[in-house]
Amino acid sequence: MGQVVAGFSMSLDGFIADAEDGVHALFRWLFKGDTAFPILGQVFMTSPTSSAHYRELLDATGAHVTGRRDFDVSCAWGGVNIMGVPMFIVTHTAPQEWLKEESPFTFITDGVDSAIEQARKAAGDKNVLVTGSQIVQQGFKAGLIDEIQIDLVPILLGSGIRLFDHLGPDPIELDAAQVIAAPGVTHLRFRVVK
Amino acid sequence: MGQVVAGFSMSLDGFIADAEDGVHALFRWLFKGDTAFPILGQVFMTSPTSSAHYRELLDATGAHVTGRRDFDVSCAWGGVNIMGVPMFIVTHTAPQEWLKEESPFTFITDGVDSAIEQARKAAGDKNVLVTGSQIVQQGFKAGLIDEIQIDLVPILLGSGIRLFDHLGPDPIELDAAQVIAAPGVTHLRFRVVK
Repeated sequence: MGQVVAGFSMSLDGFIADAEDGVHALFRWLFKGDTAFPILGQVFMTSPTSSAHYRELLDATGAHVTGRRDFDVSCAWGGVNIMGVPMFIVTHTAPQEWLKEESPFTFITDGVDSAIEQARKAAGDKNVLVTGSQIVQQGFKAGLIDEIQIDLVPILLGSGIRLFDHLGPDPIELDAAQVIAAPGVTHLRFRVVK
Repeated sequence: MGQVVAGFSMSLDGFIADAEDGVHALFRWLFKGDTAFPILGQVFMTSPTSSAHYRELLDATGAHVTGRRDFDVSCAWGGVNIMGVPMFIVTHTAPQEWLKEESPFTFITDGVDSAIEQARKAAGDKNVLVTGSQIVQQGFKAGLIDEIQIDLVPILLGSGIRLFDHLGPDPIELDAAQVIAAPGVTHLRFRVVK
């Protein structure tokens, strides 16, 4: 069965966005190479290492769960299903303008557990990617996250939105499963010990 | 000239100690191998990779700056100069009981800048290691940190003392200089872009 993978770009001091929800510095590694990497409805030029790594990750991904905040901040990703897989948006109220049959998005109003369960069904044997700090935090609290995929970016942002926050007082044990050094980013993968 | 290197073991969520100043989980990698690594006045058994890595780091280190908090929490490291190099403790008031001629510690009461300056002189061409979250934070604010050496430990502690906190609102750019995957820890080295 596929794994539920929380995925992020993160600064060395643990921020996944600056105080204004900006993420520019955290994604520079996606613009600094000579190897085409088509994703998010566009083509990035990154390093051969990062391109190969992400191609492999995306090939293993069968569904994507994220939150309303990212949906709004990104302006619905221009209406594009960014990972090319079924996309489940956790929200309190589904936006009426996107409730059309050909919408690339499925809105889930009964919580992260439900979203991950539906994404699992859609993903089949492939992995479910979970993004959005609040969604991931709720996923951790519910014990639903199997793996963490982090693109660690060499910058100290000093302030912003933390990925790992509000996780509760109990430590969560991990196993380091993969370490890939690439230009401008270190790709780290951890398994949650259950 | 030697570099000023901030050094830490850190959880994936950015903590260098738990809420009670405990660090047990962050140093398990120092106890889980089959290769002797003599440091801190004792011999640890760690992996060959970590042992070789730390031997190299310590060989390049000529002085150590840390803070009164670590000094107190560790009970003065049992009176041992833990890195085997001149050790400078930043404090508001030097503890009288340690102001003897044969003390392995030099107490600095006029700030982190002064401590690093004196450590630089003592280190000669070698590096100055800086530890202790508040000391490192002040070192960053003063622009005195050249490199960061992090032992990234695969655990989410959820709470505790953060290494990178109170750094101010301006991002600090880094270059990833080294990535070493070892059992139970990933050794990361970054250069501060100045």
